[in-house]
Amino acid sequence: MSVYTNVSEAELTAWLANYSVGRLLAREPIKAGIENTNYFVTTTQGRYVLTLFERLPADELPFYLGLMAHLARHGIPCPAPIADLSDRYLQSLNGKPAALVTRLAGASIERPDAAACAELGALLARMHLAARSYSVYLENPRGPKWWRVAAHEVKPFMKKDQYQLLEGEIAFQAQHRFPDLPRGPVHADLFRDNALFEDGRISGVIDFYFAGVDCLLYDVAVCVNDWCLVDPARDSALDAPRSAALLEAYHAVRPLGALERDAWPVMLRAAALRFWLSRLHDFHLPRPGMLVHAHDPEHFRRILASRISAAEAPWVGR
Amino acid sequence: MSVYTNVSEAELTAWLANYSVGRLLAREPIKAGIENTNYFVTTTQGRYVLTLFERLPADELPFYLGLMAHLARHGIPCPAPIADLSDRYLQSLNGKPAALVTRLAGASIERPDAAACAELGALLARMHLAARSYSVYLENPRGPKWWRVAAHEVKPFMKKDQYQLLEGEIAFQAQHRFPDLPRGPVHADLFRDNALFEDGRISGVIDFYFAGVDCLLYDVAVCVNDWCLVDPARDSALDAPRSAALLEAYHAVRPLGALERDAWPVMLRAAALRFWLSRLHDFHLPRPGMLVHAHDPEHFRRILASRISAAEAPWVGR
Repeated sequence: MSVYTNVSEAELTAWLANYSVGRLLAREPIKAGIENTNYFVTTTQGRYVLTLFERLPADELPFYLGLMAHLARHGIPCPAPIADLSDRYLQSLNGKPAALVTRLAGASIERPDAAACAELGALLARMHLAARSYSVYLENPRGPKWWRVAAHEVKPFMKKDQYQLLEGEIAFQAQHRFPDLPRGPVHADLFRDNALFEDGRISGVIDFYFAGVDCLLYDVAVCVNDWCLVDPARDSALDAPRSAALLEAYHAVRPLGALERDAWPVMLRAAALRFWLSRLHDFHLPRPGMLVHAHDPEHFRRILASRISAAEAPWVGR
Repeated sequence: MSVYTNVSEAELTAWLANYSVGRLLAREPIKAGIENTNYFVTTTQGRYVLTLFERLPADELPFYLGLMAHLARHGIPCPAPIADLSDRYLQSLNGKPAALVTRLAGASIERPDAAACAELGALLARMHLAARSYSVYLENPRGPKWWRVAAHEVKPFMKKDQYQLLEGEIAFQAQHRFPDLPRGPVHADLFRDNALFEDGRISGVIDFYFAGVDCLLYDVAVCVNDWCLVDPARDSALDAPRSAALLEAYHAVRPLGALERDAWPVMLRAAALRFWLSRLHDFHLPRPGMLVHAHDPEHFRRILASRISAAEAPWVGR
């Protein structure tokens, strides 16, 4: 589990006096997540999540919290940060930066069908449209600059042929940049476990702590690489009906253009590269106190290889 | 019913394209309310209320919408305005200023017991604390300046002894101002029908379109005069246990001071005066197109008379 910083009932009760959320009824540590300490918090007013930021750079936190607040007031079902009595989203608790956000109902789906993929596609497009009026800027912290740093750090741990694949893909991506694609704030980590469903509808999108400004299409590629595999355990190829469902639903809300069509196969590879790299990094260079078992990097190496060798990628209108 | 401006399904569908709230599923006119046109709106994302502002001054609307947004992000269960894709809360529809806000669950209670009054008291105090960091200013539009204007307008319709009571009370209030009481944005109309309950808790405070900056204690007096009568139909005296429950719960969240204790009997009279006056005005000078039957002014004349003749008013710690 990942509770790095313990918060007692007395400490939480005292801290909540800075807020207008009523009296503490219960707190419960959340065992998922590897970056932060999280508690479910129930008060006489409602249900919340308390997050203590353990390692995110302090200067990035206002971008994340502000983005969630911006999306929430546009009707996107995401955690809404609660402002304290001094009107701030970011507080501190037990020496760590801390925030209180609303807790959303629903549960994630391990094996989404085409209808669930369509739900996700439509919501992603609505989120992209709503986010475009958000004025704070943070470059995607896991973009090309970070790829080069991370590749250098994991090189000593990698077999030669695998490192060649990695180096080759970074070089390929450097030759394929798309400066004219629509850009804006993107979630950049909207895997199945970060979307909550209730009655067949998305009731929540959570965990915005990898968000940043990038191509909107990159966010679509991150989703497709996780939501639309033929069989996550065995086959990294894309399932055409689910891929089409996600893309068509997205396209119906925010039409995808010809430039995006051209960039799509490269973007799927970029999204696979980013997660292969971060999983290599977490696997070979785990941070002290990292308590959750690292994901197997091999999963995303196979996805990257599959995207490189694919004759074509599913797209809108096929 | 009060739907002054009809909005067709096609008009609403087109209008909702300015928002990130998904596709329209249903719309239903709301029959309560006398100031605005309201519709319940259901989309694939959620449940909302659409309000077309029929007669509120356009320059006051940003105060109301901004206050609701401010309170919502502090965790107060009030309608949260939804920002459109241009990041604005205030739009227009069919020629009227219009806004979309979240629809809250729950139902109002006609006969609140002491526990419900305590819930209201605690929520009111939390709302006052959260509102104090709201920086937009609007003087209570139904304050002393308005009393004088309204009294002049209803004078021709009133019996002499009743007008003397009215004039006398306005003079009395003019001699009892409390410039040093804690002030801030107040709801100013938190009657029983503007609080929604679910499972014994307040799930929503609605209708902020009489809000303004005034003494916080005035807001408490408005509530007590409606929530804590011995019998609204027959006896305008205050029920001591329910009044104490409301005040004690408020006091536990925002302690009431000695200045407020001294002002309390006068404040109860001011709150009664304000609603007697507006009901007289609506009764004798109904606005064209006012479709809801006006409330009987006599109810608040009796409350005012009861507060004037009361030996003492219930207070904290008695």
